[in-house]
Amino acid sequence: MALIVQKYGGTSVANTERIRAVAERVVSIAKEGNQVIVVVSAMAGETDKFVGFANEITDSPDEREMDLLLSSGERVTSALMAMAIQKRGQKSMSFTGRQVGIMTDSSHTKAMIEEIEASRLRTALDEGKVPVVAGFQGINEFQDVTTLGRGGSDTTAVAIAAALKADACEIYTDVEGVYTADPRIVPDARKMDRISYDEMLEMASLGAKVLHGRAVEFAKKYDVPLVVRSSFNQAPGTLVTKEDGVMEKIVVTGVTHDKNQARITIMGVPDRPGIAAAIFNAISEANINVDMIVQNISNVDHATDISFTVSRADGNRAYDIIQKVSNQMGTKGVDMNTNVAKVSIVGVGMQSHFGVAAEMFEVLAKNEINIMMISTSEIKISCVVDDHETEKAVKVLHDTFALAKQ
Amino acid sequence: MALIVQKYGGTSVANTERIRAVAERVVSIAKEGNQVIVVVSAMAGETDKFVGFANEITDSPDEREMDLLLSSGERVTSALMAMAIQKRGQKSMSFTGRQVGIMTDSSHTKAMIEEIEASRLRTALDEGKVPVVAGFQGINEFQDVTTLGRGGSDTTAVAIAAALKADACEIYTDVEGVYTADPRIVPDARKMDRISYDEMLEMASLGAKVLHGRAVEFAKKYDVPLVVRSSFNQAPGTLVTKEDGVMEKIVVTGVTHDKNQARITIMGVPDRPGIAAAIFNAISEANINVDMIVQNISNVDHATDISFTVSRADGNRAYDIIQKVSNQMGTKGVDMNTNVAKVSIVGVGMQSHFGVAAEMFEVLAKNEINIMMISTSEIKISCVVDDHETEKAVKVLHDTFALAKQ
Repeated sequence: MALIVQKYGGTSVANTERIRAVAERVVSIAKEGNQVIVVVSAMAGETDKFVGFANEITDSPDEREMDLLLSSGERVTSALMAMAIQKRGQKSMSFTGRQVGIMTDSSHTKAMIEEIEASRLRTALDEGKVPVVAGFQGINEFQDVTTLGRGGSDTTAVAIAAALKADACEIYTDVEGVYTADPRIVPDARKMDRISYDEMLEMASLGAKVLHGRAVEFAKKYDVPLVVRSSFNQAPGTLVTKEDGVMEKIVVTGVTHDKNQARITIMGVPDRPGIAAAIFNAISEANINVDMIVQNISNVDHATDISFTVSRADGNRAYDIIQKVSNQMGTKGVDMNTNVAKVSIVGVGMQSHFGVAAEMFEVLAKNEINIMMISTSEIKISCVVDDHETEKAVKVLHDTFALAKQ
Repeated sequence: MALIVQKYGGTSVANTERIRAVAERVVSIAKEGNQVIVVVSAMAGETDKFVGFANEITDSPDEREMDLLLSSGERVTSALMAMAIQKRGQKSMSFTGRQVGIMTDSSHTKAMIEEIEASRLRTALDEGKVPVVAGFQGINEFQDVTTLGRGGSDTTAVAIAAALKADACEIYTDVEGVYTADPRIVPDARKMDRISYDEMLEMASLGAKVLHGRAVEFAKKYDVPLVVRSSFNQAPGTLVTKEDGVMEKIVVTGVTHDKNQARITIMGVPDRPGIAAAIFNAISEANINVDMIVQNISNVDHATDISFTVSRADGNRAYDIIQKVSNQMGTKGVDMNTNVAKVSIVGVGMQSHFGVAAEMFEVLAKNEINIMMISTSEIKISCVVDDHETEKAVKVLHDTFALAKQ
């Protein structure tokens, strides 16, 4: 008897027909003698609807109120899913984040899980019930509802799997797994059977939408085997797990891209200690995540240019903050470019292979794609390019590193 | 400085435009130096949408799950309303039923309030905030969400007003107050300035939809002055309060009707002690409310006919139960008529006036409206008639008792 946590995303529970289909799947796995915990997202479109309502009311919604608003969609799905499972003769009950005991910090709209109590979940399992958990939410010390940020239901599922030492955590979505590149751009992209946590982390942070990065970190930390698969068929999906010998022989595992980028450049920053800290503290206080940072060294006028990227949605807010900071420190001005994209290659094998970066820059150059910024880690290389070049860049890299189907 | 609880129903918060209009109203009252607590319903149509989803999934939804599902709509409105109030420069925060501390019993979908803790609400008021409470919901001893039944947001508002000893509880709706009859049937129906709790209770229980009966009982018990008024204009509305001398001089205050009725008749019931108890216990165990009961005495064959009414939605369920009970006790059969309506006159003045009932029966007879059942209390007389006669009956009674506008 295995304990399996299954998370179903918005498209998997988009309407009552889909909810019934998922319930069927859940019950068949439970009937095979497994204990199953289901984690659900809001029905597709619901969260966007709520955000639309909030935007119609105010341009700066209070984040505590946003969390109460946004958490409602998952509650609705959890109640409907529990009903659909019960209808098939299987005992089931819904759980809100609070009822699971998901305690978070108070960073509304992007809260971090601090503890999962889970005793009520264990009782339900012991009673032969399938618990259906409303994903994406917890409560803070004031008993206020918090949400874990977009994609937070993945995190809920993995955190519960870790807390209960589940045998597997399955993430159900509308694609069959993790691909070597976006199949809409590269038609011969290949579905991977296995990928390491670290590679998946890079893929997620670089824009591959199948799995939330925080969920992967959690899975890595607590060694939870993750499976990404489709709720629309029985295909086996992609296993996200620890590195093994086979993985290391493959230099590049995948190519990924992210068009949701904006680049901000501060020109002529005085070259004084503490300047970078002043800039990025101001950004982080506004809860904006900075992705890549590049600083051009200048020995001529003791001034330097600093460029960084943020998500396009945060662009205007970041630009306004930087304008103010920049005026105070006497720079030569601020520039923002929202027509940029990030293209990256990922692979654990890179660690022991030389020349991968050079090969990437060369093939982009040969295809007349200008590189604006570069950022590297042990297992990934990212280039910021003009967003009109994204598709071309992904295709030529996928070819160069021979990632296509055999 | 007054403490005012304002409840806004579904049509008053039907969309973000309406929510903004209500916020405007709330803020202007707060700016006059009053403390305001807002109680909100779900946006019009939301609760029906959720019920529709549940019905697509199962024909017998679990009531615990129904409550989690149904409580979501009010939470959404409370978050949006708090944002809209904040947007107008007034401090505000949302409260779920749990955060208010509304403790109920465990009768899911029709829970009764047992206690309101409200300390967090008091703190918010002391901090100059307008609390916005999600109506219709509480939690039980297991920390599960419960709902108070349809119209339960009225009860939430009155219960909070009672717990905090508010100066008034205003129920905002899409009509201007309580009328002497339904204005869609009687064009010259008059809006009342005042009505007693008892009259309002009878009006509510008899089908006048403006106010939930349980809320009126609560208001009467704790002496909370209720005002029913429109959120769409500034008209003063109807005050629901204790009886006074003026009221008692008016014999009949209003005429009301309810087409949501089904009549069940059990024929040839053996005239033995305990028979009625056996019948109505079976009905009440199924959580079906019985309204009128009439028993025809028979001295001939020691058997009697028993008729009773239930809401039309409960008709089929009640009929099935009665069929079984009836077979066991050996009656002559069961009959159901779903084409019936109840027409009633209400007024505290009836207590000291003779002949009101006779006048009612006479005018119905003169207009060839057949009376199937009669039920009376100190301040109301109800007749069950064929539902096609409803409008005619209401009109002639409104005329007879001279209730029209002056």
